[in-house]
Amino acid sequence: MKRILLKIAYDGTNYCGFQVQPNGITVQEVLNRAVSDLTGVPTKTIGASRTDAGVHALGNAAVFDTDARMDGSKYAFALNARLPEDIRIVGSREVPLSFHPRYTTTVKTYEYHILNSRFPDPTKRLYSLFCYYHLDTGKMREALKALEGTHDFRSFQSSAETRPDKNTVRTIYRAELISEDGPADAFRGMMTVRLCGSGFLYNMVRIIAGTVIDIGRGKIPADAMPGIIAAEDRGAAGPTAPPHGLVLKEIRYPELDAE
Amino acid sequence: MKRILLKIAYDGTNYCGFQVQPNGITVQEVLNRAVSDLTGVPTKTIGASRTDAGVHALGNAAVFDTDARMDGSKYAFALNARLPEDIRIVGSREVPLSFHPRYTTTVKTYEYHILNSRFPDPTKRLYSLFCYYHLDTGKMREALKALEGTHDFRSFQSSAETRPDKNTVRTIYRAELISEDGPADAFRGMMTVRLCGSGFLYNMVRIIAGTVIDIGRGKIPADAMPGIIAAEDRGAAGPTAPPHGLVLKEIRYPELDAE
Repeated sequence: MKRILLKIAYDGTNYCGFQVQPNGITVQEVLNRAVSDLTGVPTKTIGASRTDAGVHALGNAAVFDTDARMDGSKYAFALNARLPEDIRIVGSREVPLSFHPRYTTTVKTYEYHILNSRFPDPTKRLYSLFCYYHLDTGKMREALKALEGTHDFRSFQSSAETRPDKNTVRTIYRAELISEDGPADAFRGMMTVRLCGSGFLYNMVRIIAGTVIDIGRGKIPADAMPGIIAAEDRGAAGPTAPPHGLVLKEIRYPELDAE
Repeated sequence: MKRILLKIAYDGTNYCGFQVQPNGITVQEVLNRAVSDLTGVPTKTIGASRTDAGVHALGNAAVFDTDARMDGSKYAFALNARLPEDIRIVGSREVPLSFHPRYTTTVKTYEYHILNSRFPDPTKRLYSLFCYYHLDTGKMREALKALEGTHDFRSFQSSAETRPDKNTVRTIYRAELISEDGPADAFRGMMTVRLCGSGFLYNMVRIIAGTVIDIGRGKIPADAMPGIIAAEDRGAAGPTAPPHGLVLKEIRYPELDAE
């Protein structure tokens, strides 16, 4: 028995999110079929991150177990021949049988893309949020900086999460804005909010993006972020930005890299 | 009567090209419906560039005539309310009634996007050609340089064009490769072939892109381009690159800009 770790990229536009669910086609369902077809044995994968409908990934992760003798590195090409073009395996390797993609310490990087311009770009519409309002990058950077460190991020958790005893403390290593600077009344073109952290609560990146955009527009003061965190109340933060601007860029497992 | 010039952006993925045709839905057909709906009068637009099925545009152009009194600059927002999200009007203005978008001197810019990497990126698959082969950017730049100037570009015209007396002389002002350089055996990520010229023959940009990629791969020698031009024979050039990597970036009308 071997455990294989897959690095998965997908365009989330046409899927009801990553995780298998009864209401529609998901990335994991398509992936499970491809793995089962390749190995000849009905196989279920275990995913690292349950991205929402419409959210994209360049580096989600999943594992499955198999008795097949194929080398771990070969699965990427073998599975891609059995997957649609909007799902690609971009890396595969054998990992210890004890490895679990969700219960292992990770460093996750998410990016939220914002197209800040007078007119939308139809070729970017499925992969960025179009924002017609002028955004003050200085204010956005100040707000993002306040998120760095270990905090209780309850204010940035979807109100659909109802378990009051859930641990909502997370660490954000870096929260940055990738954008050209310039006069506050100029459009920026494509901007990226990049968050790198130990883990994220449900909808956390989208709520942070929505809050930071409202700060850039001037709807929320630039220095409000520490107070929003301290409130520990979803109502204190801004709106949840829509899913299509979000991409799960990378999941790193330091203990695997250290081998 | 007024003549209105529209600047049009679209994602060509779901259209059978720009120009109205009986076999499927086109960008122009959708645009004509929106203009007719807005003005209340059945109206046909005249397009500048008949992009192929799957080709994208950020700056195609079209004109229509109307007796409506609305200011020319207002049409962009008014039409966008009547158009699907994959077609956007990104500028509108009144032009002289004598202005014709195809019979006026233009400077057109096309870009061909190539994703040069080990694995494809599903979120880029509809807007770039995936190329797994290492590409030598020095050779590609040398080949592109040879295209600059006024030449008979018959070698880069689709063999579907059968009129032997057609004038195939065009001027390319700039032919450049936008890419990171580095060792010849490294992947480049996203690369762009950018061509700026007085006009282009049918499939000319895609045949140039296909030829330059073959030169980058080493299938065609780097110094072959002058001979390919001189041959005046479609058979001398490389393959026609697929449509989805191509975007019509901009059409400039110097005589309008000079007003």
